[in-house]
Amino acid sequence: MAIHPLDVVIMAAGKGTRMKSSLPKVLHRLGGRALLAHVLDCAAQLSARQAVVISGHGAMEVEAACSRRTGASADLSLKFVRQEPQLGTGHAVQQALPVLPDDGITLVLSGDVPLTQAATLQALLAECDGQRLALLTLSMADPTGYGRIVRAGTQASAQVRAIVEHKDASEAERAIHEIYSGIMAVPTRLLRRWLARLDNDNVQNEYYLTDIVKFAVEDGVAVVAHQITDAAQVAGVNSPVQLAELERVYQQRLATTLMEQGVRLADPARLDVRGQLTCGQDVEIDVNCVFEGRVSLGQGVRIGANCVIANATIAAGAVIHPFTHIDGEKLGVQVGEGAMVGPFARLRPGANLGAEVHIGNFVEVKNSTLARGAKANHLAYLGDATVGERVNYGAGSITANYDGANKHRTVIEADVHIGSNCVLVAPVTIGAGGTVGGGSTITRDVPAGALSVGRGRQVSIANWARPVKKSGV
Amino acid sequence: MAIHPLDVVIMAAGKGTRMKSSLPKVLHRLGGRALLAHVLDCAAQLSARQAVVISGHGAMEVEAACSRRTGASADLSLKFVRQEPQLGTGHAVQQALPVLPDDGITLVLSGDVPLTQAATLQALLAECDGQRLALLTLSMADPTGYGRIVRAGTQASAQVRAIVEHKDASEAERAIHEIYSGIMAVPTRLLRRWLARLDNDNVQNEYYLTDIVKFAVEDGVAVVAHQITDAAQVAGVNSPVQLAELERVYQQRLATTLMEQGVRLADPARLDVRGQLTCGQDVEIDVNCVFEGRVSLGQGVRIGANCVIANATIAAGAVIHPFTHIDGEKLGVQVGEGAMVGPFARLRPGANLGAEVHIGNFVEVKNSTLARGAKANHLAYLGDATVGERVNYGAGSITANYDGANKHRTVIEADVHIGSNCVLVAPVTIGAGGTVGGGSTITRDVPAGALSVGRGRQVSIANWARPVKKSGV
Amino acid sequence: MAIHPLDVVIMAAGKGTRMKSSLPKVLHRLGGRALLAHVLDCAAQLSARQAVVISGHGAMEVEAACSRRTGASADLSLKFVRQEPQLGTGHAVQQALPVLPDDGITLVLSGDVPLTQAATLQALLAECDGQRLALLTLSMADPTGYGRIVRAGTQASAQVRAIVEHKDASEAERAIHEIYSGIMAVPTRLLRRWLARLDNDNVQNEYYLTDIVKFAVEDGVAVVAHQITDAAQVAGVNSPVQLAELERVYQQRLATTLMEQGVRLADPARLDVRGQLTCGQDVEIDVNCVFEGRVSLGQGVRIGANCVIANATIAAGAVIHPFTHIDGEKLGVQVGEGAMVGPFARLRPGANLGAEVHIGNFVEVKNSTLARGAKANHLAYLGDATVGERVNYGAGSITANYDGANKHRTVIEADVHIGSNCVLVAPVTIGAGGTVGGGSTITRDVPAGALSVGRGRQVSIANWARPVKKSGV
Repeated sequence: MAIHPLDVVIMAAGKGTRMKSSLPKVLHRLGGRALLAHVLDCAAQLSARQAVVISGHGAMEVEAACSRRTGASADLSLKFVRQEPQLGTGHAVQQALPVLPDDGITLVLSGDVPLTQAATLQALLAECDGQRLALLTLSMADPTGYGRIVRAGTQASAQVRAIVEHKDASEAERAIHEIYSGIMAVPTRLLRRWLARLDNDNVQNEYYLTDIVKFAVEDGVAVVAHQITDAAQVAGVNSPVQLAELERVYQQRLATTLMEQGVRLADPARLDVRGQLTCGQDVEIDVNCVFEGRVSLGQGVRIGANCVIANATIAAGAVIHPFTHIDGEKLGVQVGEGAMVGPFARLRPGANLGAEVHIGNFVEVKNSTLARGAKANHLAYLGDATVGERVNYGAGSITANYDGANKHRTVIEADVHIGSNCVLVAPVTIGAGGTVGGGSTITRDVPAGALSVGRGRQVSIANWARPVKKSGV
Repeated sequence: MAIHPLDVVIMAAGKGTRMKSSLPKVLHRLGGRALLAHVLDCAAQLSARQAVVISGHGAMEVEAACSRRTGASADLSLKFVRQEPQLGTGHAVQQALPVLPDDGITLVLSGDVPLTQAATLQALLAECDGQRLALLTLSMADPTGYGRIVRAGTQASAQVRAIVEHKDASEAERAIHEIYSGIMAVPTRLLRRWLARLDNDNVQNEYYLTDIVKFAVEDGVAVVAHQITDAAQVAGVNSPVQLAELERVYQQRLATTLMEQGVRLADPARLDVRGQLTCGQDVEIDVNCVFEGRVSLGQGVRIGANCVIANATIAAGAVIHPFTHIDGEKLGVQVGEGAMVGPFARLRPGANLGAEVHIGNFVEVKNSTLARGAKANHLAYLGDATVGERVNYGAGSITANYDGANKHRTVIEADVHIGSNCVLVAPVTIGAGGTVGGGSTITRDVPAGALSVGRGRQVSIANWARPVKKSGV
Repeated sequence: MAIHPLDVVIMAAGKGTRMKSSLPKVLHRLGGRALLAHVLDCAAQLSARQAVVISGHGAMEVEAACSRRTGASADLSLKFVRQEPQLGTGHAVQQALPVLPDDGITLVLSGDVPLTQAATLQALLAECDGQRLALLTLSMADPTGYGRIVRAGTQASAQVRAIVEHKDASEAERAIHEIYSGIMAVPTRLLRRWLARLDNDNVQNEYYLTDIVKFAVEDGVAVVAHQITDAAQVAGVNSPVQLAELERVYQQRLATTLMEQGVRLADPARLDVRGQLTCGQDVEIDVNCVFEGRVSLGQGVRIGANCVIANATIAAGAVIHPFTHIDGEKLGVQVGEGAMVGPFARLRPGANLGAEVHIGNFVEVKNSTLARGAKANHLAYLGDATVGERVNYGAGSITANYDGANKHRTVIEADVHIGSNCVLVAPVTIGAGGTVGGGSTITRDVPAGALSVGRGRQVSIANWARPVKKSGV
């Protein structure tokens, strides 16, 4: 089989009326990414020479979204053409012709069909082999309403003679379970010739791409089909219901892949991964967790129930207790080996926890580094802080990092013990081994080894009468 | 078709032994409302002249619950009759006869069958048409054990000749897949005549309502059937297992309806709506959210994973992060346009957030108004407070609104900056543009533009020896 | 049927390569317990004289785990034998022979088949009756690949003539839907005789236990089968995918059992019980809750959505709001009658709440007793504290129970009112009826009835200029 350059044409001009959304259909997200991004990733996996996106409704938004793309398709060469007005699938591909060189194969994909696997398309391209019109087809239990694939014989390799619309099909043709998926691969030089012959002499007054099958047969060019049985691979998204269905298919497949790598999932139906989740050996993930962006879990990491974790690296042996919210955004979050986080903890961008660090309930950490063995176990805020080894950061204590205008840094050196409900007014440094008494507000640096206290003197008023409940209130 | 007044009779006397509950069966909740409330709503949608609830077990509790009813059936005229003892379905309807005028149609429903749709019953009433006995029937794949509908012919419109119990059915009759649902519509004047002829000459010694089919046939009155295939519409709740099954059916239908309106649900199987959820365009709801009471989500609102939201109005563009708990109870909660709430936030009754307000992690707001752009981002409590525009309310700060007997109000005027871990002892006012230093307890009003501090002076004791771990402890 | 002593042999030597784990396969957990623990529990329910665990891969770890066992099998007599190397199922059982007395029945189970029910095995043992070789068999819709049970006739009681491997089966044999489960009961004296005749003259060079069927037939010993249709009972765990599948089956069965007892589950598919959950009448459990260890819920207890509860006793009428995390570990947690806990509350070991206690949002309680009617509603920490009746513990207040080396106790007597953001530095006692002003740090005991305050004096600086945002930052 000869190698031909591959140009991928992606139909992305439709309005998606049934989505009932102001967002162009192909920008709706599945697994956290735009439908179109999944198709572009697939094109990149096929080593396409270029992808040509045919936009129409919301074209500027679609093009802008593509230019911000990341992931597998970041380096894919991309061109945009506009289809305005939209006069059918054949008309759409006609718009791409000026940028499709004759030496290539054109693979026609849909921007709203996100789950096609590259291996499937590779098989289709092999069928095309630079000289045939190759259709991707699906075997369906109930093909009612779909265009049937009529072949020249009963063998799996029998050539295709026609695609017959359901309404035009004979009784015998309606008994056929093989239907056209909307995806085809075709030598570009032939595509160009056939598109020129399209007309819109039909009820819808549209130019149908499928009409080129007829021209191929007329021209004696072989029409072949690669048939699959996995409907999800060619399923399109036309409504929120279909989007939700494919989201579940996508998540189920990801969950299965993770389990096959050895990850133990308490309930595969209650896992959501929107991005890239990498797991070491013996990782356990409890029910109802959500992972977003890039998350890496080291060997033996355990994630408790109901965690939401985004853009974080969690080292071996760390335990994330239930109800933990981690989002590293662009700065990322690092959790060290054997650290314990949660329940009810929140790690924000730039939280960098060393080994054996403990972050407990109702504690928020942002843009702070905690060295090995430091602990902040209860109701605390650490922002813009540098915390040394073995520091114990008391319940209710807060780094006052924001003076209403600027952010300042708090430094807590090794072995410091910060009492409860303290305020450390940054910029401030607590020297190594120091102690801050509970209830203190610290505004000046504290020398190493010192006890610092900043609080009022306790006084008592005996036999004090508390207010009484007002009548009528 | 003539218009006849409609009287709905609802069977609600059963004990529901298999529920193993002290609550009368018809008061068990589905979608957050009593089973009986669903049936009353349906009666109201049919514009019934009245509903007659036949109570028995737990009658007082049932009647009390009905008198507190809200929603679609709030204005429905309601009568109660008691069936004591319970001597069968025919006996039950006999108790209602004194309050059923002869000019009407009687529609017999069950208080434990919550999912019948009004359109289905309208079709049944059309079959009845003021002169026929109309049965609602169900086509089941496996009708074993159920009473079969024997018709006079094979046409869909063929009249019913009998309902034959499974145990009495011939081989041919057992092959029938159409069964009686327990729901019928009958001209009241005929119902009265037939109920008078019932006897309890059977194994159970009960008076069976279904015996009137026989009398209708004897009297030459047409017996017709409206057949449906959706078993959930006529499914009764007799056990917690069945209740849970119908709950899921109900939730699934709600989820589908929302998606058809354009709402994007990350997982339709993990949404629970118990009340009325209204959504604008481009609303996104992540996994595992619960909505209760009346909740309104404006255009473009995004609800993160694992939120519980009740009785709240959330304006366009607001973002509710994961793990947010909102319950407005009777006062309601308002979230303004573009506001950001959570994660781990709690909004309680009377929380009224203006546009662009930020409420962050571990923050509780109750009976407080926050004007545009105000922020309380960390570990804070705002109760009985009026907060001006652009106020920054510091981490760990608390309005001490309760003196042990009465609640008092805190006023924080525009552009105030409250430091960390402050206590504002109400009643107190912080004047516009003022600043409260971190760690301060404020008991007296602060003038506009002033800096207020109320905290101890920081002192240090050098080379302080911290306590050491006691041996043996 | 004669009574024969029962010896249970459990195959637990396999590596479980497909688990891709460093943990021996039989120690992977289902419903919170090792697979092997489920099998041991089953043996205990059968009143086995002993269980003999045949270990191999990870033998020391397996044996150590067994010696720590709790629950139903804690008193079961246990022996370990090693199978090294692993030369097949027959070879495995040969290792156990030295500890199997001839007067008994040997029941061969697999350590990775966790869901077999004792009643099923009792029926199998009845078939064996001390004299027959009894096989547990499964009727499968698609038996492809499995060894078929060939019987001497078509009756359910017809004796077994052979187990025929799929690849060796004739067309007629392949039509058989009954397959061997891997579980058998056999008189030990016969087992010993037959195991001596095994050879490994086969492709795998292994000694197959199933070969004893052939010897039984040769010896004229009746071979019988107890056939079941519930595949989960004999399903083995060989991969994380299978483990997750059986986990769901296990959870679904538990949920159904709970509902049959009257427990109302908002969604049976979103309940996880890992241990023993005991419920009184009219208990309601909302979606997505996890229960671990021993949890007891009294009459009328309601558990909100998304709770994680372990090792706790919750008395009648208590309400646990959403997002509550309770883990009593070894000390346990007690929640009193009518108490209200959450949302976002955390109860840790030794939290002992009396009747009508309220624990609110962002509150942590550890090793503390709260008497009737005490309240800690907001953002607070109570550790090592004894709290009297009707105490109101203010928002943001903290018991400073840890001096950096030792833990100390805080005593708050009845009717005390603790203000907001206080620190109680233990050891310290607040006398009955006393009041602590908001923002106070209390380091010395407070007499009964007194008002204590420990905070700085409020001062104001008029017209104070707040810092301005640095340019370029």
